[in-house]
Amino acid sequence: MRQITLISTGGTIEKTYDEHAGTLMNRSSIVQEMLRLLRLEDTQINTLQLMSKDSLNFTDSDRKRIFGAVELLTGEPEDPTGCKGIVILHGTDTLCDTGEYLYKEIKEPTIPIILTGAMRPFEMKRSDALQNLNESIFATGSLKPGIYVVAHGNAHQFPGPVKDRERGTFIKPSEARSTRRNRMG
Amino acid sequence: MRQITLISTGGTIEKTYDEHAGTLMNRSSIVQEMLRLLRLEDTQINTLQLMSKDSLNFTDSDRKRIFGAVELLTGEPEDPTGCKGIVILHGTDTLCDTGEYLYKEIKEPTIPIILTGAMRPFEMKRSDALQNLNESIFATGSLKPGIYVVAHGNAHQFPGPVKDRERGTFIKPSEARSTRRNRMG
Amino acid sequence: MRQITLISTGGTIEKTYDEHAGTLMNRSSIVQEMLRLLRLEDTQINTLQLMSKDSLNFTDSDRKRIFGAVELLTGEPEDPTGCKGIVILHGTDTLCDTGEYLYKEIKEPTIPIILTGAMRPFEMKRSDALQNLNESIFATGSLKPGIYVVAHGNAHQFPGPVKDRERGTFIKPSEARSTRRNRMG
Amino acid sequence: MRQITLISTGGTIEKTYDEHAGTLMNRSSIVQEMLRLLRLEDTQINTLQLMSKDSLNFTDSDRKRIFGAVELLTGEPEDPTGCKGIVILHGTDTLCDTGEYLYKEIKEPTIPIILTGAMRPFEMKRSDALQNLNESIFATGSLKPGIYVVAHGNAHQFPGPVKDRERGTFIKPSEARSTRRNRMG
Repeated sequence: MRQITLISTGGTIEKTYDEHAGTLMNRSSIVQEMLRLLRLEDTQINTLQLMSKDSLNFTDSDRKRIFGAVELLTGEPEDPTGCKGIVILHGTDTLCDTGEYLYKEIKEPTIPIILTGAMRPFEMKRSDALQNLNESIFATGSLKPGIYVVAHGNAHQFPGPVKDRERGTFIKPSEARSTRRNRMG
Repeated sequence: MRQITLISTGGTIEKTYDEHAGTLMNRSSIVQEMLRLLRLEDTQINTLQLMSKDSLNFTDSDRKRIFGAVELLTGEPEDPTGCKGIVILHGTDTLCDTGEYLYKEIKEPTIPIILTGAMRPFEMKRSDALQNLNESIFATGSLKPGIYVVAHGNAHQFPGPVKDRERGTFIKPSEARSTRRNRMG
Repeated sequence: MRQITLISTGGTIEKTYDEHAGTLMNRSSIVQEMLRLLRLEDTQINTLQLMSKDSLNFTDSDRKRIFGAVELLTGEPEDPTGCKGIVILHGTDTLCDTGEYLYKEIKEPTIPIILTGAMRPFEMKRSDALQNLNESIFATGSLKPGIYVVAHGNAHQFPGPVKDRERGTFIKPSEARSTRRNRMG
Repeated sequence: MRQITLISTGGTIEKTYDEHAGTLMNRSSIVQEMLRLLRLEDTQINTLQLMSKDSLNFTDSDRKRIFGAVELLTGEPEDPTGCKGIVILHGTDTLCDTGEYLYKEIKEPTIPIILTGAMRPFEMKRSDALQNLNESIFATGSLKPGIYVVAHGNAHQFPGPVKDRERGTFIKPSEARSTRRNRMG
């Protein structure tokens, strides 16, 4: 039975439609809804609702809290029943900033720590939310210890990955450089 | 751009409802429908419709054809643009038999070769088909070369995994032994 | 607040996929699931699970029970809080037989009594089940008292409508005659 | 073959999520998507994209255009192949204003003219858009000639219905009066 913890911090993944205002707002309990749609065997998922804010508004204090939660969960690496992987649901806009922060703070990760998010809220019919969550949960059992961003079929390890704002996905740093080169050309 | 090939062989994943007969039958083009629901970046998916039959009816001849397809696709390991992963859609009943067959025939896999299937047809509202396909495609980028079954959040490498018919999922051989022990106890 | 009663008798609408057998079987509680997906204002829906069998196996005894339930529910036509419409979920194969039976037995209907069903089980991704249920519930507020079959955007009053087995829908008797004429032509 | 025309004017029903801005914007082609999800027999649907704006921004000039379109479509009442019903997709905020306007301008309607909309965009997972569209299309075959708003299982004829902003639905004028009475009490 693989134990993993899902940490929610907010982001587009949780945006919900407010009928009266006609706008999108953040809502918490969406993680439970998403998990109900996945068939996960021999996996125990703990969920931790840390905060619910747009990552554009994240401060270092927020990142410090996330780091604190990760530290807390990875306290007992030798414990066979302990946490074997962490998935952090994060807004995509500053997800890589948090990835770099965790990479700096966590000298030697003992488990995979995976950041993921969604370009389209889960409440939308066509959303990448469930796909990315699914890949991230799966990845906790196949990636080596480290800090990663997982989405859209890919896993990129920190340091280095960035958000490609045009395409709305995450890319390796080398791809980022060649993209810039092409545009300047 | 990661190139992977999806080989369809049939199975529950493709079962479709025949209104006139009121029963389920196999239908091919479902893979394209499923892929349309996934957002895969930097991944090129080739699809190969090899056969469309219930795996309960598989013969060694069918397994030999699957092996032949795998050999064909993995012909050029040094080619950077070549096939980097194979996902085989297979009926769950004899998926592990094919897994063992491929394990015996392929001495040194150069890429991940992943078998997956579904307990509930994709055409059903609640189906594990898309989840398992998603995990398998993702896994081609995170697992080491070898033969695997991927489903329900887990990856099990051959030789050894079996189908747990009670739970409708795949388990490692060690878990299989302890399950039998518990039942006999 | 419009009060209507939904009577379930079984049929394709309720067919569910049995993973172990790999076949479709009837299951009851699907009506509640469907109702949860509809947003119905000022309507109170009572549900009555009368039986759960394939309509191909219906006997006159079953039809008599359905008639008995309808009689029971329409006992107090002057009661403003009483039942204002009945929707009967029925297998499509012999739905019209039940419609004719009710037409003969119920001399002067005081409310709309609507039979409906589905060509594809609700559990399938592409199903007409919810659409037909929705139209039928709506129809209880817009049709004059009488016995009807409602499906696929249409309402046909008994006596007369039949199932067009080729197209998998219901048609007026006049259309049935011209279809036969065309085929013989 | 019942001919009906669907007139799109915009509204919440068509709001779509803009990944880059992270907001909702209006998009046209959604009607075709919705129609693909309905199984409508013996019904021919013509679609007319008149405008695509939030109904809060409607002016009398916009309403005049809608009236013009309705007049154009109902020009030949004796023509058996002519338009037998009109469904107008409209923002819910000022839908009733347009209903009253059409009621005043169209002295003697020869077909049902139905206004409908959605409280939640069709692009959201939980949306009333398809349900209301379905009910409205069905209603063109069951309601007497007149101007109506159809949504959430109900049909209300103009003049008189209003939007109940608290509940997010439409109600008859008498219900509106008693609601106010209750609140003042």
